[in-house]
Amino acid sequence: MSNVSPLAPATIAELPPIAGVRLATASAGIRYEGRTDVLLAVLDKGTAVAGVLTRSKCPSAPVEWCSARLAAGKARALVANAGNANAFTGAKGMDAVKRTAALAAEAVGCKPGEVFIASTGVIGEPLDPHTIGRVLRGAALSARPENWKAAARAIMTTDTFAKVSSATARIGAADVRVNGIAKGSGMIAPDMGTMLSFVFTDAPIAASALRTLVRQEVVDTFNAVTVDGDTSTSDTLLVFATGAAAARGATTIKSATDRRAEDFRRALRAVFADLSEQIARDGEGARKLVRVNVKGAVSKNSARRIALSIANSPLVKTAIAGEDANWGRVVMAVGKAGEPADRDKLAIYFGDIRVAHGGARDPDYDEKKVSVYMKRDVIDLTVDLRLGRGSDRVLTCDLTKEYVAINGDYRS
Amino acid sequence: MSNVSPLAPATIAELPPIAGVRLATASAGIRYEGRTDVLLAVLDKGTAVAGVLTRSKCPSAPVEWCSARLAAGKARALVANAGNANAFTGAKGMDAVKRTAALAAEAVGCKPGEVFIASTGVIGEPLDPHTIGRVLRGAALSARPENWKAAARAIMTTDTFAKVSSATARIGAADVRVNGIAKGSGMIAPDMGTMLSFVFTDAPIAASALRTLVRQEVVDTFNAVTVDGDTSTSDTLLVFATGAAAARGATTIKSATDRRAEDFRRALRAVFADLSEQIARDGEGARKLVRVNVKGAVSKNSARRIALSIANSPLVKTAIAGEDANWGRVVMAVGKAGEPADRDKLAIYFGDIRVAHGGARDPDYDEKKVSVYMKRDVIDLTVDLRLGRGSDRVLTCDLTKEYVAINGDYRS
Repeated sequence: MSNVSPLAPATIAELPPIAGVRLATASAGIRYEGRTDVLLAVLDKGTAVAGVLTRSKCPSAPVEWCSARLAAGKARALVANAGNANAFTGAKGMDAVKRTAALAAEAVGCKPGEVFIASTGVIGEPLDPHTIGRVLRGAALSARPENWKAAARAIMTTDTFAKVSSATARIGAADVRVNGIAKGSGMIAPDMGTMLSFVFTDAPIAASALRTLVRQEVVDTFNAVTVDGDTSTSDTLLVFATGAAAARGATTIKSATDRRAEDFRRALRAVFADLSEQIARDGEGARKLVRVNVKGAVSKNSARRIALSIANSPLVKTAIAGEDANWGRVVMAVGKAGEPADRDKLAIYFGDIRVAHGGARDPDYDEKKVSVYMKRDVIDLTVDLRLGRGSDRVLTCDLTKEYVAINGDYRS
Repeated sequence: MSNVSPLAPATIAELPPIAGVRLATASAGIRYEGRTDVLLAVLDKGTAVAGVLTRSKCPSAPVEWCSARLAAGKARALVANAGNANAFTGAKGMDAVKRTAALAAEAVGCKPGEVFIASTGVIGEPLDPHTIGRVLRGAALSARPENWKAAARAIMTTDTFAKVSSATARIGAADVRVNGIAKGSGMIAPDMGTMLSFVFTDAPIAASALRTLVRQEVVDTFNAVTVDGDTSTSDTLLVFATGAAAARGATTIKSATDRRAEDFRRALRAVFADLSEQIARDGEGARKLVRVNVKGAVSKNSARRIALSIANSPLVKTAIAGEDANWGRVVMAVGKAGEPADRDKLAIYFGDIRVAHGGARDPDYDEKKVSVYMKRDVIDLTVDLRLGRGSDRVLTCDLTKEYVAINGDYRS
């Protein structure tokens, strides 16, 4: 794999335990040598689960499995693997999922329908369930509350760093914790702007309330990240709530509109936002994190579509890779979005520097000043359409030769 | 600029004259040194014109000018320049267009409203009309019927070869000719799949009939080409019909449904198709021409959307650059298109080799055979959805490190 992204966090923290969650990793040798590639999370009885899955019309077998299991809202285990996505593997793919669920249920002591499964890696290669199956019993025995960083490492593919995040919230008389891990880092686009992310909390919350919160909070986090506009067949976000904090005095949340859920919602959003930004920071070949801000649009949805048009434009992304404040290409990307825009009203900023407004280059445009700004590793690109009050933000990264190298030679 | 695309035609023909059309090129020094950058086409009285322009919401000043002039359908001159797109140049941009039209009208001896203008190059830089203006008189005096290859060269930007095409058709008692030139080669996406293309014919045809034919024939030619999914602010296709062949006995076409127009339609389509394929062959950094064929879709429109989703996928394009028959990424691109698709029915072919069907890898899949195929410079990628009778084809090219290099350092 490549060197660590220059946009990686300076350190990757070991997260604190969450009551009711135990983690183990193992090396099943699915594709990689000399590293872990299976994650098992063992969850206490009573754990609620909610999630958001890829909208791809060709989802992977594990996505279909999770989709069918989410309605019941109950989880006792998560099995995730890297190296093989078990996508487009036909009837064998679903057989592999069922077999994995059965083996995990046996190892953990639960029903197969309480096992959630996620796979990432190559598409179209058959996945032998026994490869994973034979490490599950040992994993179940060795699962511990501390393994967060190792868990994040076990699900990496072309990721260059492990992605973890944590936050706390107050519910009633007790603090609850939210821990999350994620992996990117190509084939990243809404919806979902992730490949795999697993979030765990000890908050006592009904599955239906959790589902509402998760769906609302992905909009401006995981669904506002794009690396290459390519939506995966495997995108999976699962949030598990053990409810263990109830024993310490946390109130049980039954509805997403319960005011006592607000601080928990904030913590959940913080973890989602942190993980999704880390995914953009680890976009394949990324050297710059780009925040595309759109304001003055006719609506938030319109602002989102314009922001995505900019964030997915190869010409904008290559210009940023070249540290070129090529706002002409930003105008192009606004124009191609098909959303209401008036060329002669819009203004474009790199950082705080207005480079264009009123349909032309800013009269005070200073190429040197902008050039200095473009050398930064986080670029704020803002378009003000001056038409309405709709605004939005999307995260992306630059498009470099390394992206092409990584993806032109992935399978070999 | 880069070396000539490996996908370029072996030779670039000098086209035969077209009665009523004279061409001249000049070096105005707009941006480039030591090359021509202005094309003037002088057209005989009675020339009809029709065209298709970018659908960008932020069109260039020349596009706005042409859009307003196309309704009248009359042309006496075309002025095109490379090096500066005169896009997002505010009120000054339209002033520059008006001034250029006035100067060209004076040089040619016509009304400014009969002058068509197209510009390509950098966006957002003011264009001084006198730079072009001062070469127009000399150009008008030196215009000749033979300058086709030179004309195609004068409008190149990052193109690596001049794009020309010619065809003949029978209308009534006479042969008519259709000549076209075009330039690409980044920021190429529907609609239009070109930046600039100018087509000339001596066919006698009413502007309204020509307009209908042009709009119908771009659908599967210029609008079915994508290099990077980025739609230009400047895309312009103009077709000029001098009518000179009437003197030789060609029937005047008044309606696009006139059966006598069919052979002319065929010739027009042939020139459009040839030029648009050349644009894909000269996509920035391209090493492979990719024909994305979709069949068995629920409709032609659905097939088009799926084909574009595949053709614009960075992951599919980088895989092809790496000569990797990564059909898993094709499944991904079908899935993200949002169109009706059944994972377990679809089949994927590279050339004649079926690599996947029935929701999984083909049981007869032979990686070696496919690897040999992927070394070709023209790749046929076919998806059969097996849902209906809708089919379509889109042309694109691979995504290489050279694309990133060209676009990461275009302005400097």
